[in-house]
Amino acid sequence: MVTGRVLVYGGRGALGAKCVSHLKAANFWVASVDLTENTEADVNVAVKTGESFGDQEASIVSAIGNALNDQKLDGIFCVAGGWAGGNASKDLAKSSELMWNQSVCSSVIAATLASKFLKEGGVLQLTGAKAALDATPGMIGYGMAKAAVHHLTKSLAGKDSGLPTNSTVLAILPITLDTPMNRKWMPKADFSTWTPLEFIADLFVKWAKGDDRPDSGSLVQLVTKESKTSLVAA
Amino acid sequence: MVTGRVLVYGGRGALGAKCVSHLKAANFWVASVDLTENTEADVNVAVKTGESFGDQEASIVSAIGNALNDQKLDGIFCVAGGWAGGNASKDLAKSSELMWNQSVCSSVIAATLASKFLKEGGVLQLTGAKAALDATPGMIGYGMAKAAVHHLTKSLAGKDSGLPTNSTVLAILPITLDTPMNRKWMPKADFSTWTPLEFIADLFVKWAKGDDRPDSGSLVQLVTKESKTSLVAA
Repeated sequence: MVTGRVLVYGGRGALGAKCVSHLKAANFWVASVDLTENTEADVNVAVKTGESFGDQEASIVSAIGNALNDQKLDGIFCVAGGWAGGNASKDLAKSSELMWNQSVCSSVIAATLASKFLKEGGVLQLTGAKAALDATPGMIGYGMAKAAVHHLTKSLAGKDSGLPTNSTVLAILPITLDTPMNRKWMPKADFSTWTPLEFIADLFVKWAKGDDRPDSGSLVQLVTKESKTSLVAA
Repeated sequence: MVTGRVLVYGGRGALGAKCVSHLKAANFWVASVDLTENTEADVNVAVKTGESFGDQEASIVSAIGNALNDQKLDGIFCVAGGWAGGNASKDLAKSSELMWNQSVCSSVIAATLASKFLKEGGVLQLTGAKAALDATPGMIGYGMAKAAVHHLTKSLAGKDSGLPTNSTVLAILPITLDTPMNRKWMPKADFSTWTPLEFIADLFVKWAKGDDRPDSGSLVQLVTKESKTSLVAA
């Protein structure tokens, strides 16, 4: 007997894989959408980067529809994304496009999936960034893409957005996640201010079960101090 | 003797063509970047939609560099853009991508041009939308793209953004422009609340000359009542 059904978009990344694990441990049926397979998930759907954005959306909708077989999802968690620095003086088109593809396109497809497969009263989570609440002159493409995700979150929480009745749409706004990659690249940072992936995975388990969800449309900053993380509405 | 040199991105659209006319009348040398030629402009550079975004950026930078021949620009005015409605329930990827291409890509290339060819103390203008200051559940892709342009404006106005010293970056946030197309599609609207294109073209002539520029980073709402337009900072 499963607790419910959820989908993790980016289920093979550091954060996504942790989410899949914790959701499986809580007896959820889990679908993972990513470039490669997560063997812990019940179902895997591959994102084909060679396809146009519209075709990606159509393929993923079709594959998830087949896997669900008329069941609906309790939660959709989109933790796909990436980071690129850079100001206007070099390759701004390139970094903007990369951030658009990694953060906005994944969020848009997650929104489409929510409109089609989320239960009434379900939860859709997207991933923004605390940094993008302000100007980001040293990482312009990144800030733009995350600002777009914040706006998408608010629009999806609005009336007649196309999402099911009583659904909750939230964005988490991390500062720095405690991932192996971040430890590798910033070995001298104060890790006690980084947000543990387990905290987020446990948060999503709660949200999937309908517990302690912030209001729909919230941009939820994850503020970690002395290894303790608080949710702070932006 | 020219007053100065300016570039209009989208110089063949309804608003862009009006800007080219007024800037020419004020004796500016004018370059127009658009899909097709504006014969009033001194120089035309074609956007090739078949090219990748990065290649578009490189082609336009190269063509404008050749046309300027080591001269610099007093102003860059980006009025390219478009509109698409739609919530999450139908073709969200398609409308989001269209809006990204029309509004964000043009703004990003304008920013790149500013980093390379704008004078110290010059002005870069981008085009946002008042509607995108709030959630836009009925036109999700449009709102996201314009929110990205608002964020880009603030980032470019920040320290070390790659723009020349003392330059001013502004976004205009129209409500409804009084264009022939809008009159055609909304024939029964109250035109006295629509912003005349001439008002905007005259505003840009002033900004190009360095007169009455709002602070850099401003999101300038264009509020028209009884056919009179005011600038209201967001």
